Amino acid sequence: YGKNTIKFLRLHKEGKKHFVKEVEVCAHLRLTSPQEYLEGNNSLVIPTDTIKNIVLVLAKKNGISSLEQFAIDICNHFMTTFCQVAYVKTYVQEVPWQRLHEDGVPHIHSFICVPDGIRFCEAEQCRNGPLIVFAGIKDLKLMKTTQSGFEGFYKNEHTTLPERHDRILCGELFCKWSYGECKDFDFDCIWKKIRECILEAFSGPPDCGEYSPSYQKTVNCIQMLVLSRVSQVQVIEVVLNNTFYNVVDMKNLGLTNDKEVLVPVEAPYGSCACTLARK
Amino acid sequence: YGKNTIKFLRLHKEGKKHFVKEVEVCAHLRLTSPQEYLEGNNSLVIPTDTIKNIVLVLAKKNGISSLEQFAIDICNHFMTTFCQVAYVKTYVQEVPWQRLHEDGVPHIHSFICVPDGIRFCEAEQCRNGPLIVFAGIKDLKLMKTTQSGFEGFYKNEHTTLPERHDRILCGELFCKWSYGECKDFDFDCIWKKIRECILEAFSGPPDCGEYSPSYQKTVNCIQMLVLSRVSQVQVIEVVLNNTFYNVVDMKNLGLTNDKEVLVPVEAPYGSCACTLARK
Amino acid sequence: YGKNTIKFLRLHKEGKKHFVKEVEVCAHLRLTSPQEYLEGNNSLVIPTDTIKNIVLVLAKKNGISSLEQFAIDICNHFMTTFCQVAYVKTYVQEVPWQRLHEDGVPHIHSFICVPDGIRFCEAEQCRNGPLIVFAGIKDLKLMKTTQSGFEGFYKNEHTTLPERHDRILCGELFCKWSYGECKDFDFDCIWKKIRECILEAFSGPPDCGEYSPSYQKTVNCIQMLVLSRVSQVQVIEVVLNNTFYNVVDMKNLGLTNDKEVLVPVEAPYGSCACTLARK
Amino acid sequence: YGKNTIKFLRLHKEGKKHFVKEVEVCAHLRLTSPQEYLEGNNSLVIPTDTIKNIVLVLAKKNGISSLEQFAIDICNHFMTTFCQVAYVKTYVQEVPWQRLHEDGVPHIHSFICVPDGIRFCEAEQCRNGPLIVFAGIKDLKLMKTTQSGFEGFYKNEHTTLPERHDRILCGELFCKWSYGECKDFDFDCIWKKIRECILEAFSGPPDCGEYSPSYQKTVNCIQMLVLSRVSQVQVIEVVLNNTFYNVVDMKNLGLTNDKEVLVPVEAPYGSCACTLARK
Repeated sequence: YGKNTIKFLRLHKEGKKHFVKEVEVCAHLRLTSPQEYLEGNNSLVIPTDTIKNIVLVLAKKNGISSLEQFAIDICNHFMTTFCQVAYVKTYVQEVPWQRLHEDGVPHIHSFICVPDGIRFCEAEQCRNGPLIVFAGIKDLKLMKTTQSGFEGFYKNEHTTLPERHDRILCGELFCKWSYGECKDFDFDCIWKKIRECILEAFSGPPDCGEYSPSYQKTVNCIQMLVLSRVSQVQVIEVVLNNTFYNVVDMKNLGLTNDKEVLVPVEAPYGSCACTLARK
Repeated sequence: YGKNTIKFLRLHKEGKKHFVKEVEVCAHLRLTSPQEYLEGNNSLVIPTDTIKNIVLVLAKKNGISSLEQFAIDICNHFMTTFCQVAYVKTYVQEVPWQRLHEDGVPHIHSFICVPDGIRFCEAEQCRNGPLIVFAGIKDLKLMKTTQSGFEGFYKNEHTTLPERHDRILCGELFCKWSYGECKDFDFDCIWKKIRECILEAFSGPPDCGEYSPSYQKTVNCIQMLVLSRVSQVQVIEVVLNNTFYNVVDMKNLGLTNDKEVLVPVEAPYGSCACTLARK
Repeated sequence: YGKNTIKFLRLHKEGKKHFVKEVEVCAHLRLTSPQEYLEGNNSLVIPTDTIKNIVLVLAKKNGISSLEQFAIDICNHFMTTFCQVAYVKTYVQEVPWQRLHEDGVPHIHSFICVPDGIRFCEAEQCRNGPLIVFAGIKDLKLMKTTQSGFEGFYKNEHTTLPERHDRILCGELFCKWSYGECKDFDFDCIWKKIRECILEAFSGPPDCGEYSPSYQKTVNCIQMLVLSRVSQVQVIEVVLNNTFYNVVDMKNLGLTNDKEVLVPVEAPYGSCACTLARK
Repeated sequence: YGKNTIKFLRLHKEGKKHFVKEVEVCAHLRLTSPQEYLEGNNSLVIPTDTIKNIVLVLAKKNGISSLEQFAIDICNHFMTTFCQVAYVKTYVQEVPWQRLHEDGVPHIHSFICVPDGIRFCEAEQCRNGPLIVFAGIKDLKLMKTTQSGFEGFYKNEHTTLPERHDRILCGELFCKWSYGECKDFDFDCIWKKIRECILEAFSGPPDCGEYSPSYQKTVNCIQMLVLSRVSQVQVIEVVLNNTFYNVVDMKNLGLTNDKEVLVPVEAPYGSCACTLARK
């Protein structure tokens, strides 16, 4: 079982307009025989250096039409080329370059990095098994400054947390979903749609929001909305790494503080995770 | 000489609409006497905890109308309240929360973190000296996929770099400027204008760009444009941390590679810096 | 499914001598019912804050005789106190404080942080299932400057790596093992013994070393030695994150370089992992 | 003004015994003319790639007898070779590889990374000026679990910190000193001696320690001891990044806590710095 990470840039031009994809590819391989480990026999081992070459050659030949298609291409290549490969998983992650705009006009060759949620995908296959494709978003930081509380939780002699009906809800979101039988999907379009679902389920209607009784319930709302709106998604996993904020007690400084000044609580921090599948 | 870092959130409402500023404040103090160091006499020492309280109380009372005004408020407070303070510097940095939009409609209380360049400022004062204000942007990652070269450089027996007239120009920008006599400036508006100047000078006209003969020249172009467009800026420092990309040599893989697949060169990496002042 | 991280320090004294453990505890809980997610019903939810209190109270009452015993104590507490808990996993990691010595004399209350491999452990239990204990070491960086090669690997048209019989072997080791039926083990003693096995298997005899034909074989040697020497270990997983070094080609600088100057290859980097169990 | 970072390994053998130095070198250059910035004229520019080659060639030819000597060699090379260089500064930092021992026997070619304080140095020169050498240690984490307090500090209406006479003193130390006229020093020996001074001044006698009334006073004690014991040191700067620990209040959990369980206070954190020169 081995894994390798390669970072590179793929450029292409349409007329004078430049397009750029910078990706990090991680390939996991498991061979049919463990002889490399047990006997130090390297005859079936595919070196890291060769894996790198293959990934770069595929990028050169096929381009990166979508992250998912590129991950599928890599999996297919390893499965069809190397009969000693028992299992392959390819993870592809994108550096979030966006085209620069000047006064609304798109620039033909300049880009800015905007990391408001990182897109990634995975393709996975066992020999003689189906090719499964996952996609996801990570490092997406969101905050609601109201319409969130935490009440009615379990209490015993170790409980010191007060109930709150108007706290801050803030966290870093990880969301990964799997596509079922992977047909000819428009992966870019679906990804954008799911990102919008996440933002909408997290925040509620723009004019009033929607009350969240817990991080857990917000996680579930996101999952439910994605499953209801995007039929291609079969299973969806959401992890929300919570950042808690405490209202600063200013009584001994002679002031009231009506949720105006808050400090992040760095420890303990928590996270909640849930995986939900279509019936 | 001591310094302290405090992180907090300042919320306020206008009607039902929420506004949020999350900042990290770092206060440096130097006292008139070094007795705390030499004699272990703490009688003039202002504890970290007190500094934190002062920053939070000022945030509560004044709000954060702009980062710069808040930094000025803190400096003023320390200078006028503590006669043992010989020097104070306040650094304020913003967590880049942006209001969420759903189908173009702004959300009243939901935000997303978009770190495409971090805004910061500094206010600095010696006792009996003027209050000086700096502002800046950091962690701004930009890339041009063409219109950049590096030719005609100094050569000797240790030179192995080939000349290139069509390379990638990519880097992380740090830019800091000082305002002269600090009057009643609209700091938010100026900051946005300077950010636009930086993007424009880096990338050139949207339809064709502008050739950059070196990282150094691009640094200078940014400075010149800011000084010419923004009269309030007196001195401007720009640091560009370069990321180099090499075109992958695919000859021994039987392929040509016309600047289509490139890999980042992680070491050596370089940076160039320049400070330019108005005459 | 939720998880929480708590960092704290536990001090105790024996006479005038001080002892310190600084640990990071991460508790994962899964409840018997998903009602918190599906219905927003918090009545069974144990807040992060309560989990923190429990961990601190157990540390205060029991002390931390060993990381493993502390992890077991936490698991037991959750299983016996909360009938709504279906599964609990506790991860404990130690900050590597070591007693300071002056001219060989141990200091009674001063410590230095020496992160040459981080000790951690896990205890895991499903309701009505056995309590399983794992221990491990991570972030252990090792290097052999000779007695390592990589030859006879699989080759095809994408192969560019030359065979090498005298390269550098360098990597960051992660090693985790499980104890079987967990009796009254001396966890500290076993951990030290395994650490020594790892170092010995990695490096070979001090006067001559032992040739490693691949990272994979070195991983296997470590596993075999631990299993043969430490009877309490049932299963052992080793991951080696490789750092490759290339001999710098100095021909065009007019010099030979007989493996004297090497540069780390930052990408692609690889890792190999293997899990081995006693028959 | 430009700077470049290069990482590499230098190996050498004495008989069958291997020696390794892995270093990170950062070279700052300022040229006599700013024409590269103002005019985009590259004719005097020394490319990053050339700087890298020079550093590697010097390492190959001279070896790295000590970090300081290597930094001096690089400065000298740039000053004597390139008349367009107005200023050069070289920073060299060491990866803390230590020889492995098995049962007390040193291994001939195996090493372990032990980052308990990172050694670095700097050499700096202006054209026609003297060559100045600095050395230092950083990332050295130390803790005293008693014999530390903070009392008698300045108080006003923003003070909430209680006085404490038995707290934890913990921090990360940065220490940098300059050698005067740099003769034929044994840099390795002096560096080890200074490290011992730091540990001794921080912790006091092994059997009882010595009371520290503040972080500031501990900083000064370190400086005074180094200056008194090591005649080659002319100026010494110490920065102590404090980690504060609070005793957990367990009253509402029905327990007393006699400084047994403490949590780190992540914000605000502070640092104190002082530079002291010989008269």
